[in-house]
Amino acid sequence: MAVSSIARPFASSTRPSLSEQYRSVRSYTEKLCEPLEIEDYVVSSMPDVSPTKWHLAHTSWFFETFILRERDPHYVPLNPRYAYLFNSYYVQAGERHCRAQRGLVTRPTVEQVFEYRRYVDEHMLELLENLDEDDAVTLGLHHEQQHQELLLTDIKHVLWTNPLKPAYDSKRANQAGVKASSGWSEIAENVHRIGYDDDGFSFDNERPAHRVFLERFKIANCLVTNREYLAFIDDVGYRTAKHWLAAGWAVVQTESRQAPIYWEKEEDGWMEFTFAGMTPLDLDAPVCHVSYYEADAYARWAGHRLPTEPEWEVAARALPQLPQLYGDRWQWTQSAYVAYPGYSPPTGAIGEYNGKWMSDQWVLRGSSVATPPGHSRVTYRNFFPSDTRWQFTGIRLASSEC
Amino acid sequence: MAVSSIARPFASSTRPSLSEQYRSVRSYTEKLCEPLEIEDYVVSSMPDVSPTKWHLAHTSWFFETFILRERDPHYVPLNPRYAYLFNSYYVQAGERHCRAQRGLVTRPTVEQVFEYRRYVDEHMLELLENLDEDDAVTLGLHHEQQHQELLLTDIKHVLWTNPLKPAYDSKRANQAGVKASSGWSEIAENVHRIGYDDDGFSFDNERPAHRVFLERFKIANCLVTNREYLAFIDDVGYRTAKHWLAAGWAVVQTESRQAPIYWEKEEDGWMEFTFAGMTPLDLDAPVCHVSYYEADAYARWAGHRLPTEPEWEVAARALPQLPQLYGDRWQWTQSAYVAYPGYSPPTGAIGEYNGKWMSDQWVLRGSSVATPPGHSRVTYRNFFPSDTRWQFTGIRLASSEC
Amino acid sequence: MAVSSIARPFASSTRPSLSEQYRSVRSYTEKLCEPLEIEDYVVSSMPDVSPTKWHLAHTSWFFETFILRERDPHYVPLNPRYAYLFNSYYVQAGERHCRAQRGLVTRPTVEQVFEYRRYVDEHMLELLENLDEDDAVTLGLHHEQQHQELLLTDIKHVLWTNPLKPAYDSKRANQAGVKASSGWSEIAENVHRIGYDDDGFSFDNERPAHRVFLERFKIANCLVTNREYLAFIDDVGYRTAKHWLAAGWAVVQTESRQAPIYWEKEEDGWMEFTFAGMTPLDLDAPVCHVSYYEADAYARWAGHRLPTEPEWEVAARALPQLPQLYGDRWQWTQSAYVAYPGYSPPTGAIGEYNGKWMSDQWVLRGSSVATPPGHSRVTYRNFFPSDTRWQFTGIRLASSEC
Amino acid sequence: MAVSSIARPFASSTRPSLSEQYRSVRSYTEKLCEPLEIEDYVVSSMPDVSPTKWHLAHTSWFFETFILRERDPHYVPLNPRYAYLFNSYYVQAGERHCRAQRGLVTRPTVEQVFEYRRYVDEHMLELLENLDEDDAVTLGLHHEQQHQELLLTDIKHVLWTNPLKPAYDSKRANQAGVKASSGWSEIAENVHRIGYDDDGFSFDNERPAHRVFLERFKIANCLVTNREYLAFIDDVGYRTAKHWLAAGWAVVQTESRQAPIYWEKEEDGWMEFTFAGMTPLDLDAPVCHVSYYEADAYARWAGHRLPTEPEWEVAARALPQLPQLYGDRWQWTQSAYVAYPGYSPPTGAIGEYNGKWMSDQWVLRGSSVATPPGHSRVTYRNFFPSDTRWQFTGIRLASSEC
Repeated sequence: MAVSSIARPFASSTRPSLSEQYRSVRSYTEKLCEPLEIEDYVVSSMPDVSPTKWHLAHTSWFFETFILRERDPHYVPLNPRYAYLFNSYYVQAGERHCRAQRGLVTRPTVEQVFEYRRYVDEHMLELLENLDEDDAVTLGLHHEQQHQELLLTDIKHVLWTNPLKPAYDSKRANQAGVKASSGWSEIAENVHRIGYDDDGFSFDNERPAHRVFLERFKIANCLVTNREYLAFIDDVGYRTAKHWLAAGWAVVQTESRQAPIYWEKEEDGWMEFTFAGMTPLDLDAPVCHVSYYEADAYARWAGHRLPTEPEWEVAARALPQLPQLYGDRWQWTQSAYVAYPGYSPPTGAIGEYNGKWMSDQWVLRGSSVATPPGHSRVTYRNFFPSDTRWQFTGIRLASSEC
Repeated sequence: MAVSSIARPFASSTRPSLSEQYRSVRSYTEKLCEPLEIEDYVVSSMPDVSPTKWHLAHTSWFFETFILRERDPHYVPLNPRYAYLFNSYYVQAGERHCRAQRGLVTRPTVEQVFEYRRYVDEHMLELLENLDEDDAVTLGLHHEQQHQELLLTDIKHVLWTNPLKPAYDSKRANQAGVKASSGWSEIAENVHRIGYDDDGFSFDNERPAHRVFLERFKIANCLVTNREYLAFIDDVGYRTAKHWLAAGWAVVQTESRQAPIYWEKEEDGWMEFTFAGMTPLDLDAPVCHVSYYEADAYARWAGHRLPTEPEWEVAARALPQLPQLYGDRWQWTQSAYVAYPGYSPPTGAIGEYNGKWMSDQWVLRGSSVATPPGHSRVTYRNFFPSDTRWQFTGIRLASSEC
Repeated sequence: MAVSSIARPFASSTRPSLSEQYRSVRSYTEKLCEPLEIEDYVVSSMPDVSPTKWHLAHTSWFFETFILRERDPHYVPLNPRYAYLFNSYYVQAGERHCRAQRGLVTRPTVEQVFEYRRYVDEHMLELLENLDEDDAVTLGLHHEQQHQELLLTDIKHVLWTNPLKPAYDSKRANQAGVKASSGWSEIAENVHRIGYDDDGFSFDNERPAHRVFLERFKIANCLVTNREYLAFIDDVGYRTAKHWLAAGWAVVQTESRQAPIYWEKEEDGWMEFTFAGMTPLDLDAPVCHVSYYEADAYARWAGHRLPTEPEWEVAARALPQLPQLYGDRWQWTQSAYVAYPGYSPPTGAIGEYNGKWMSDQWVLRGSSVATPPGHSRVTYRNFFPSDTRWQFTGIRLASSEC
Repeated sequence: MAVSSIARPFASSTRPSLSEQYRSVRSYTEKLCEPLEIEDYVVSSMPDVSPTKWHLAHTSWFFETFILRERDPHYVPLNPRYAYLFNSYYVQAGERHCRAQRGLVTRPTVEQVFEYRRYVDEHMLELLENLDEDDAVTLGLHHEQQHQELLLTDIKHVLWTNPLKPAYDSKRANQAGVKASSGWSEIAENVHRIGYDDDGFSFDNERPAHRVFLERFKIANCLVTNREYLAFIDDVGYRTAKHWLAAGWAVVQTESRQAPIYWEKEEDGWMEFTFAGMTPLDLDAPVCHVSYYEADAYARWAGHRLPTEPEWEVAARALPQLPQLYGDRWQWTQSAYVAYPGYSPPTGAIGEYNGKWMSDQWVLRGSSVATPPGHSRVTYRNFFPSDTRWQFTGIRLASSEC
């Protein structure tokens, strides 16, 4: 699986037409909703979580706002109030409903939201008939893929919040593979080039490509497993401040944390909430749903550190066989999410896509079990704040001692 | 309407059997849900509001817990986890789901909750076949009637929270009647008897009946109208501290309040959110959805005051023709909700029903457009905190200057 | 002590002149400050607490604002900014510094505040030379006496907040007397008159005198002792919800309370923080620093209840020998603080003194060890919200079962 | 001034003895307190601010804990409770008083805190008689210098919080110099070495020295002035979201910000609160007290960006004549505060000094008017979170477009 998720799904030779791509991405979103009840679409279980219904509508709003309204002056929206309801954060695209209340909006109904999708699709497909390439449409598709992952992470949290702990899909788990190997790979000191300079799609934040110097370092061949993380918990873990960042320890104390989110200790041992409901913790699977604080504390305890963003990319380019790079867990780096030298955001509302988030977040690299196939790449920069736990985030270690 | 709501629905002569009463009350609850979409059942738009789904389940839980499990040792609950999910606040009945998360629970689905109702009904009706009178069952029915009113007040708030402002039922409004008359009625000083000492049903907090002395006072024949309240707003209203309680003024300032909740000033004048959606403010209707703070400020501005609880009851007994006593708006009194002299709560979890709420709330008297027919009576004590606005609350004035 | 505190200090026959009264009250305030270090005057240890420095200045501001500026158009304030800094809550007297920041204002210094007092005193005494009676001046003196009690309750909390637990005055304790007697006194049912209608001073909220009917009741001869309260703690106390008001139990849970504020359990037994620092709990002294929630829970546990406000006053008038009425602990009543029938506040800013606080508070009767001698009387209505604990508040029981 | 602050005060040739250094640093702290009243020492005006009294005591606690108690088993502390009261955040050094309550502790008095300083000094100087070099003592001196700067930034905020806006010292302003020049300096692409590898003192976070590659960039010769920042305010500034980071814009909106902290618009123009009180804004002085959010927004508006940490250090090494590097304003970089490759913290409580803060903060370089002479250096890494404004922080621009 890890391999398939980085494979370019629409490689240029056999690349499907833009309208085929559109159909494919849009229907994948709806497929993810199949296991849900209508009630599941409505609620938001915490500030980071958006309702499924909102994801379905917002991704349609994106095409409506940045393609249909831009290109066709005669386009008539299905419901003019949706522009207000389903704008996420694009200040330059107009006023919007406040995020904190997304989970309180019972209408439009789920059925009406699907109707909205069909309406947008109809107009989009008409427009795409005569389009071979289009940057804005391609951006919309990658945007929708990002919401596919969010839809999964969010509905997992919604279901976990329920004391009944219902499964999303009993045939789907989020544990992955058996630990392929252990040990480290070494990268010699050098000037390297990172960032995107190919001719396919990338987000603006992956550009421009530029050079970095890296001192010699080594990087772990595999992700930290549940077994290894459990050893940390059993040793000192959440009980002493020693290995924790001050801000992380404050959270551990305030919230009386004792394990990653979704873990629960029962008489017979540790259980974990997965897409299939509560299941016994798979000790060989990579640890999941750890925050930066936990990843950093584990790394210090283990005598190592997290890789920087350039180290990760250089290693991933140099050692493409490195296991679990993609499709298992997003990997925390100890690099803050800031602009690459020479970066400038696009003009207009689209410029808000990445540029205005460049503070108070860390870069994560790779991709996860929840990332749609073909979405990520070696230069891809995901980013979340220090205490994010509801994403499928894990730990790859690095070290300067070679 | 006002008249019918106080009429004893099950007057002893023609009183239907207990199982007929049960069927009648239970089906009325479900009738209230008919205009709703499945999505509407799920959310809670503020801490005071419970999801419709929860009201449906909790009222069934009440019968299950206090009747079925008490009477039948062999009773098997449909789902043992519901005892946890649908207990509201009965500490002695066991652990319960935290109130703040009621609106986040998407399962059981609405269909499963109706199934739960049918399951409880089936067992209850079997049991009621051989029962002619039963205090606990009667309490359960009055309890369900209270939740019928809450279901309406809550869903109104949920729908209002939605920027689309959908109607609950376009044929139903919450404005009532034309102002019947104006002027005051006077009650001479005397020792009076208040509280319930009849042989029908009453809540424990209406007892024991006892004597009070009232100095001479007068009470307004009708409720304050929107027109009158608007004169207060246009004069000084929410703009100067002068007539406000300090705590009320603090809220006005902090939340920049300018009118009752549900009011909205548009170009053409004031609109109000009703069960039928946004409609022009009916100037002759009694003002609705005002908090104690607003009721008190209005009364001070008008040079009068709110009645005390004994004054209201004495006037309602002496002047049964007094308009708008029942069925229009709950009427704030300036009496705190405390025990009557000699009150003692029943033993067991049922003792928590009223006794533990006797602090930090005001008594309201009468009943509202949302109160189910036959539920209220002249001794009925409703109670809410000072800043409650989502209930159908209005203002009846009183004065000591006769 | 209990006796002296109710004795009229300025009985008409021998009543000192107004300027003698002024000197006496003003110097008593300053005497209370003698044990303090300069640092102690500055801080506020919680939102209810004002700095000593602020009390000293605000009481002077009161005379400056309501006497000197009103009477003498040529009066020049020492510092015009003090009008802003030392207004407490009189909206009609102009803008004021926000309460939450009172403890952050290091200038004027303590020395400058005393200078401000001397400046006001000089002008006041000049004015009082030709005044024999003056309602506003008398109000200012009673106002200052109220702040004398607050100054003591506040500095006690400030010192307790310090981990070093310094004493205010090692020769002063707040425990009082030995339990004089036990048992109950009974009052027969009757119409009684309560409220102030004498020709001396009273606050507006004590008027008008009016009649009430009281069913027969009994009232405890003495206050509940620490020994008795400890029995409640040791039995179920803060560990089960059963006897608590819902709002009270919520606080107990949220704050993990296990005893009254200022109590601390050490190896050798319970200690209490007093004006003399940490001292062993005096089991015979009346329990102190309990909130309404605790007083009510104790009363329910003991099988009794708190008296109502009219019951307390009627008993105190009928049984003046009843021990511990005054000078020991303020006594919680189960009466909300609302206007007496026929009450209307004075006009102008002075009308804000009592009238705007008539919500969300309970009446307390009697007086405490911290009340200045001669300040209280049988009609005196003190008032605080349900969870107030830093005042010298205790418990007198009542019952309807005679 | 800028020059003197980077000059090594204790250059090796003429370096004073350790005890002379100790006396010099300790007395400088006390000199900073000379303009203060006793009341000023006590309070904390916001969570980031510690009372002056606390700084005086904590710096003494540092020597007591890490030198006196470590070296002399017979050392008897002046007051054993001070170990609890004056530990800041060293978890491994024992329990400590909670930060939020530092401003509520009125005892020990200021006089007692100075006595504590004298007691520690006496024992330290005895010990230093026989010491020529000592890493821990040197660390203690640099630690005290950091608190000298904090003492100034904190007391400035305390005095500003006071509506009277008292001056700290009317002869001292925090404006500096006239804009020396404008324009940019360019640095060619190259591999550079940054970090400390000299043999003097540095903090652990400045090490190890290591190589970085920098693409070509240019850096502004001078800091952004008040005049330039005012042009930003007058253009769009705090009124449109366009140039702001999302997190920054959220703060601007929530707090209705319109200018840097300490600025106030009066009829005659902008005023600024300085050590000398409110003074007219000096348009030629470098803008001060701007957060990262403001620095970044200004840079985007100006079409440039902030330098990265390596860019700043490389430019400062290559162009030592660059004006305003030191002694004017700390300069925000767009580099997150993380460990250098190969960094490992010292063992023991001292390891908490820098290592545990490496998240959610930005590096600032240079030094400010409040930094004690000789404290900073070219490798010095100061760090604060994104919304820090009470420090003396300013803006130096950089750009990748040469």
